[in-house]
Amino acid sequence: MSSMQRWILRRRPEGEVRPGDLELVTEPMPEPGTGEVLVRTIYLSLDPTNRLWMSDQDQYMPPVNIGETMRGISVGVVETSRSDRLKPGDIVNGLGGWSTHFIANGNHLAPLFAQQGLPLTAYMSVLGATGLTAWYGMCDIGHPKSGETVVVSAAAGAVGSIAGQLAKFRGARVIGIAGGKAKCDWLTNDLGFDGAIDYKSEDVGDALDKLCPDGIDVNFENVGGTIMDAVFSRMNLFGRFALCGMIAAYNDDGRPTGPTDFSRVLMKRLTIRGFLVSDFYPRAAEAMAELIPSVTSGKLKWKVHVDQGLEGAMDSLQRLFTGNHDGKLLIQLSPEP
Amino acid sequence: MSSMQRWILRRRPEGEVRPGDLELVTEPMPEPGTGEVLVRTIYLSLDPTNRLWMSDQDQYMPPVNIGETMRGISVGVVETSRSDRLKPGDIVNGLGGWSTHFIANGNHLAPLFAQQGLPLTAYMSVLGATGLTAWYGMCDIGHPKSGETVVVSAAAGAVGSIAGQLAKFRGARVIGIAGGKAKCDWLTNDLGFDGAIDYKSEDVGDALDKLCPDGIDVNFENVGGTIMDAVFSRMNLFGRFALCGMIAAYNDDGRPTGPTDFSRVLMKRLTIRGFLVSDFYPRAAEAMAELIPSVTSGKLKWKVHVDQGLEGAMDSLQRLFTGNHDGKLLIQLSPEP
Repeated sequence: MSSMQRWILRRRPEGEVRPGDLELVTEPMPEPGTGEVLVRTIYLSLDPTNRLWMSDQDQYMPPVNIGETMRGISVGVVETSRSDRLKPGDIVNGLGGWSTHFIANGNHLAPLFAQQGLPLTAYMSVLGATGLTAWYGMCDIGHPKSGETVVVSAAAGAVGSIAGQLAKFRGARVIGIAGGKAKCDWLTNDLGFDGAIDYKSEDVGDALDKLCPDGIDVNFENVGGTIMDAVFSRMNLFGRFALCGMIAAYNDDGRPTGPTDFSRVLMKRLTIRGFLVSDFYPRAAEAMAELIPSVTSGKLKWKVHVDQGLEGAMDSLQRLFTGNHDGKLLIQLSPEP
Repeated sequence: MSSMQRWILRRRPEGEVRPGDLELVTEPMPEPGTGEVLVRTIYLSLDPTNRLWMSDQDQYMPPVNIGETMRGISVGVVETSRSDRLKPGDIVNGLGGWSTHFIANGNHLAPLFAQQGLPLTAYMSVLGATGLTAWYGMCDIGHPKSGETVVVSAAAGAVGSIAGQLAKFRGARVIGIAGGKAKCDWLTNDLGFDGAIDYKSEDVGDALDKLCPDGIDVNFENVGGTIMDAVFSRMNLFGRFALCGMIAAYNDDGRPTGPTDFSRVLMKRLTIRGFLVSDFYPRAAEAMAELIPSVTSGKLKWKVHVDQGLEGAMDSLQRLFTGNHDGKLLIQLSPEP
């Protein structure tokens, strides 16, 4: 009898995720009931928000309950179907979880309509939630104009690298903040950023003063903490501040402080807007109209880092907090069809 | 030879404005040059932002320079004209300053086109900068929908009292925060607010929990500090936070802290927007299209508190920080024509 594996949340982590917070269990392969399908996971997405989901702080979705499969975005292939909507071999994506296989109602899964010639990993990154996140945060909230100065934090990450390029396409001057020389070189040499700041070796405030002598019009914020504050305190009149994430705080108590000088919101008439990609799903076609041709033409560059095997998921997750990866972080659980 | 009086900024106040920070001087009446007019001030507006202008912190206008006339919005009457655009008896408004008379270029003054039957004080309050501030902050940034819950701080003030009524006109549930029973009674008995919180005798957080059981969709923020934080921490998903002022901090070092739990911006996908009425002047007709008929019909209620005489300006200004006035605070310097 065949078996499957999944990670179960056993207790809520305090600070960094530690061994014992989640447990990898092996179970008999389940069988789909009427209307259901059995899906084999191919790629699992690891995202900063996973850490939030493990906590019980007030957040945008219910936290994962203790004893439940850890939540995660995945793409998989239907192995057995008792649904009229899906047949074996169909590629589907959704919240499949940290699990080699899962059962789902066939009506609740979205078949993936792949473009010719693009790998599945594109749909887990630049043409998936992270690409949409970048598009809406930059284009709908930041809406940079030609000649404006844009700063992106975690700029070599899955979202930041796309967000920065989208601002470049609109004629803005784009400065990225990332950790390490290799990432900074990638931003300026390969992605066309106008400048990059290595927060591990430079004072971010001093570097911003040098690279953004006319201040900052748009901030795409992924990090929070002192880096966010350095950018905030240089925001220009009518600046836009798209708050996408605050990973710096996710391993803390989840109560990150805001900008030190909040009166700047008033004096500079800033707009700060928090957003989640899921709010924009009904409008995904708008973003895809730019993202798909930009990816297929090679104009928009993207990277994935693929670790192998579900058993290393907890180590892989740490890469998000140490920065030890490039672009979108995925785990491959089984071969592509 | 006739004389005039004006208040000069002598030094930047530390904390509360104190005797000696400004000086009232008497000078010979000036005479207009070619293209200029001599204006006699009738009403001078006192506003929280006056305190900011006295400081040299980074702000939305240049600070008043030491040795200059204190800046202020006023309405006056042309006494002598050497400008083709204005004639004696014309009513004009603008930044006339804390001064019984002033000289201005006739091309730089806006004649006031008064509606029949409304007193001049209406143009210094509900149909002036404070009314426009209320309209844009509430209608353009807060845009409350029918059934939503709106909170207004400094709700019995010149801006807050108008902002709250505009939200009521849109079918929202409106809760005002004000200091003292008399003000709270005015909000609920006369202005139609659904509830009022006396921050001087109630715990604002507890009162908000009682009066806003479904959370808060729109905040019109005039105060900052702990009252702002109590409202912020109860903001609903997709809430709008119009930041109009933070008077609680203006007598401090001018670096008010933001909300304690900044991650709420992300989790609840809030929009925080700082604004100044001057940004909206080009669109004033939009606001006036609602404000003028609402005032002339008596539907929109408004109050002014008029102190007499320029010499008491510094004492009058203190009313803004102690709350010892109702509605718009003005000083009358000379009789209406």
